[in-house]
Amino acid sequence: MNSSLSRDSQVKIMEGTVNNAEKYLGQFCLLLASYTRKNARLRDKVDLLIKQIMDFANTENPEMRRCLKDFGEEMSKIQDYRQAEVERLDAKVIGPLKEYGRLTKSKRGDIKKFNSVRNREMKELENLQKLKQRNPSDRQGISLAEANVQKASVDVNHTTHQLEEIIFKFQQQKLKDIKAIFSNFVTVEMIFHSKALEMYTNAFQHLNNFDEEKDMAAFRSKICISEFENDARPSQSHSSSSLQPSPGSQLRTPPRVLHAHFQEDESDDEEEEEDEVEELQDLSDDGYQQYAKIRK
Amino acid sequence: MNSSLSRDSQVKIMEGTVNNAEKYLGQFCLLLASYTRKNARLRDKVDLLIKQIMDFANTENPEMRRCLKDFGEEMSKIQDYRQAEVERLDAKVIGPLKEYGRLTKSKRGDIKKFNSVRNREMKELENLQKLKQRNPSDRQGISLAEANVQKASVDVNHTTHQLEEIIFKFQQQKLKDIKAIFSNFVTVEMIFHSKALEMYTNAFQHLNNFDEEKDMAAFRSKICISEFENDARPSQSHSSSSLQPSPGSQLRTPPRVLHAHFQEDESDDEEEEEDEVEELQDLSDDGYQQYAKIRK
Repeated sequence: MNSSLSRDSQVKIMEGTVNNAEKYLGQFCLLLASYTRKNARLRDKVDLLIKQIMDFANTENPEMRRCLKDFGEEMSKIQDYRQAEVERLDAKVIGPLKEYGRLTKSKRGDIKKFNSVRNREMKELENLQKLKQRNPSDRQGISLAEANVQKASVDVNHTTHQLEEIIFKFQQQKLKDIKAIFSNFVTVEMIFHSKALEMYTNAFQHLNNFDEEKDMAAFRSKICISEFENDARPSQSHSSSSLQPSPGSQLRTPPRVLHAHFQEDESDDEEEEEDEVEELQDLSDDGYQQYAKIRK
Repeated sequence: MNSSLSRDSQVKIMEGTVNNAEKYLGQFCLLLASYTRKNARLRDKVDLLIKQIMDFANTENPEMRRCLKDFGEEMSKIQDYRQAEVERLDAKVIGPLKEYGRLTKSKRGDIKKFNSVRNREMKELENLQKLKQRNPSDRQGISLAEANVQKASVDVNHTTHQLEEIIFKFQQQKLKDIKAIFSNFVTVEMIFHSKALEMYTNAFQHLNNFDEEKDMAAFRSKICISEFENDARPSQSHSSSSLQPSPGSQLRTPPRVLHAHFQEDESDDEEEEEDEVEELQDLSDDGYQQYAKIRK
């Protein structure tokens, strides 16, 4: 029975190899798909932020407007790279990992086939034992049973060779694939991070170029009419017209209450989390609650 | 009435400045808090992935085991930097933005105060008009009413000056803060991206160093007993013992079905999205469904 024991161990190792591949590569697939999806949501969230930055830019004076729009455009480019990251992760990481579902299923089939061949050998061995016990003088029957055992053993040997070959190749391919898939992952991430770094460098420059003095001069000319009033209160039609908000300005539209944007924000993001909805309700009571949940 | 009209415009611009700051900085705060939270979830997701990589490493032969552990450690360092990113965003971006809730509320109070002073002036002007119509010969009454108008006008002028100063300073601070907050955001992101780039470079190197041949030799010695069997089938106790999985190997533990990990995965991440739960149910039917939702 040593042969059976060692073969038991051998098959268990093979089964373990296939089962662990199925389990862990399945987990990698699941978690990396979730990681990719969360990145897509980050992108959506920043897209919403950019939209608000652009809208806000339109309410500001030319200097700040330009600064915010340049900043927003760099942010937007980063989201394009994030989108490329999401697509590449899907094609070069999730796709190949998904293949392992099909692959491990097929290998399990091979092991099952082997087990049935081996069970036949065990059965033939049992038959032989029984025959020897019950009818030790039946030479012909015993010979036949021994021949059957021999045949089944040959089958098992043959199938063992085949299975070893199959599992060996499977493991070889698995090692190559794991290396390739994680290398793909790292490469995709590196491209994204280096591009993001480049765009953020530009974004920082745009913020740095902002001329506050110039912007404040424009603002002063808009809101400070008191000098005119003191000097020439009777005739003010010119200053009155200069106070009209510029076209595209949203100064005259009644500001929507915060709660309204939150609802809009939410309908835009169909995958918003439940807890976020609760937070938004809190926000309607106090627009500036603590809503950044971070690690304890 | 020109004076009133231009003052109307002036106050509307001031109100617009405060309301837009409240609205948009509130939105920035909300969206960046959500962005930060989503980054924290990305970190959690990669933490789970690392856990699985480490568990998987323990089921593999020494070469792959070392490769995966080195890879996992670099990934883990990136999550530490992501954690620092989350904390910095909270302190340097979300915190200062939250301040604007309190600030804009106080500015709205100033505008309200100004409006009540201006309304008193309007009322005094109305009184004077009525008196002039009803009793044009009441010189004394008209004089008194004119004095009241004069006094109210002086108050309005004074409050106008004050309000201009307040809103001017508010705008100046707002411009400085927006520049500083977005610069902080960019700096925090740049630090994270550059650190991630560094760690991914190391991770790539670890994957590149993996010696597949050596690992396969170890695997072959584990699973290939058929050579022994063919040559020396009767005595195999040595190969049998060599087939025992090494300590720490999980080969003998029955592999948990995928569905079970998915549930575990979910309970780990208390903020998981509803749609993900649905996907997980699909996965229990077919472990490798298409579950990467990406942008259309």
